[in-house]
Amino acid sequence: MTPFADRLAARVRATRAPLCVGIDPHLHRLPADMRARFEGREGRAGREATAMAVGDWAVQVLETVADVAAAVKPQVAFFEALGAPGVVALERLVHVARDLDLPVVLDAKRGDIGSTAEAYAVGALDDHGPLGADSITLAPYLGPESLQPFLARCDGEKGVWVLVRTSNPGAAVWQTELPVAERIAAWVDAESAKRAGACGLGPVGAVVAATVPAEAAAWRAAMPHCWFLVPGYGAQGGGAEDVRPLFREDGLGALINSSRGVLFGAGDDDDYAGAVRARAEAAAEELGRVAGLR
Amino acid sequence: MTPFADRLAARVRATRAPLCVGIDPHLHRLPADMRARFEGREGRAGREATAMAVGDWAVQVLETVADVAAAVKPQVAFFEALGAPGVVALERLVHVARDLDLPVVLDAKRGDIGSTAEAYAVGALDDHGPLGADSITLAPYLGPESLQPFLARCDGEKGVWVLVRTSNPGAAVWQTELPVAERIAAWVDAESAKRAGACGLGPVGAVVAATVPAEAAAWRAAMPHCWFLVPGYGAQGGGAEDVRPLFREDGLGALINSSRGVLFGAGDDDDYAGAVRARAEAAAEELGRVAGLR
Repeated sequence: MTPFADRLAARVRATRAPLCVGIDPHLHRLPADMRARFEGREGRAGREATAMAVGDWAVQVLETVADVAAAVKPQVAFFEALGAPGVVALERLVHVARDLDLPVVLDAKRGDIGSTAEAYAVGALDDHGPLGADSITLAPYLGPESLQPFLARCDGEKGVWVLVRTSNPGAAVWQTELPVAERIAAWVDAESAKRAGACGLGPVGAVVAATVPAEAAAWRAAMPHCWFLVPGYGAQGGGAEDVRPLFREDGLGALINSSRGVLFGAGDDDDYAGAVRARAEAAAEELGRVAGLR
Repeated sequence: MTPFADRLAARVRATRAPLCVGIDPHLHRLPADMRARFEGREGRAGREATAMAVGDWAVQVLETVADVAAAVKPQVAFFEALGAPGVVALERLVHVARDLDLPVVLDAKRGDIGSTAEAYAVGALDDHGPLGADSITLAPYLGPESLQPFLARCDGEKGVWVLVRTSNPGAAVWQTELPVAERIAAWVDAESAKRAGACGLGPVGAVVAATVPAEAAAWRAAMPHCWFLVPGYGAQGGGAEDVRPLFREDGLGALINSSRGVLFGAGDDDDYAGAVRARAEAAAEELGRVAGLR
């Protein structure tokens, strides 16, 4: 059994880049041949046609980036918006990622209490459940105990990413004008330290934004045992230099997500898979250098 | 067009009780004939059989409580745990509730930013989407802007319930040891006030626990324009007296949820629908009296 944090470390070392490719199916930006399969269709039949196309698109992206990306991050909301057929596409995506040995960050930002949190954990992480993802993003507002069912899975091979400092402008209003983010960070680090793997990092990660570089070093110091999942690089305005303080000296400790920056170019791509591959390689090269892995 | 808050007010007045029946399909507690349809079956086929039984069970519960409950609250996690077939059952439940004119509180505790939050809003609330629920519970940690796509729907006929003070013991660690809950409460009340209906309450509600009666009057005073969705009554230990300070003088302003207390008795019920109905009527009677509606 390989702990989640060590599996990530091995993937980052093997790809020599901390790149996480976000799988956000913005429908109007899918390749033209995919869009043609659902545009103009509505209702349940339209959602089914859309979900089938989204599933095919996502599998193509996964196969294209499988040896460039350290992990992939499907954004659950886009699949849920398509109803049950969208969930079928999400299940297919996660199963294909597992076959490709690509660790999955299920970006679901779940959070609830007691038996409800347990049900979310079964649905997202358990190998006998519908998805069996490697890790999931979690919203912590309900309190430490709301994360316990997920922590129980972290004692095995699974991982979590707790929202600490997010990349949106309004995040500051509650997260950093008040001392709540620091409190959550301390808790997250302690839980990860308890479960740290050979790489010195544990399976309880933190979401820390790339868009607030002035805080980056402080978050690294506050959570020395945590992998960071870092949104905001690329399309959201964070640059590679902004994320440098989020890495440990050995280049591990931060997984930098890029969704639109890898998935979608300025216009339609004649060779979609080739263009995705080229954008993923460019991001991996830039991030690998900043992390000191290349 | 009836604003969500006014529709709720009309339902509470018509049923003379502020009862919200939570639809939490705890599989091991379903009636024996329902359990027999899936027990011992595993994997995808097992999830499909389970989801079919859960869907039938939920529809039976809805039809049983349709004239006793002011609203129903499906707990999304239990449906998600069954994968895509579970989502089919959830879609069926919501559509049946709409046919029965029962307002739906989709207990999903979603929260994300930008286009992702928009996708969650489409998936949960939009009438052209897969569910078209009347309202949804939201986790606020990402900041005010994360709630904007949902607020846009509140300008129409939809409603939201923002986590402010939850019922779990650990909630205090971040919600009330720190000033974050007060800050969120002030924001939630202002947004609801802007959109207040004829009843003086708006569509932006707050989740406020029944389990902290010492705080109840303060939350009522802090959010005069908000409906409260109140977990913790019954199975979680909150009594009817504990929720009294959460109502306005006219008996409106709080929707008290009971899930297990209505759905499940001490043992198997010989007449399941009859037993659900009797428990719902008893809860409605107790809550209607405390609210001054009976």
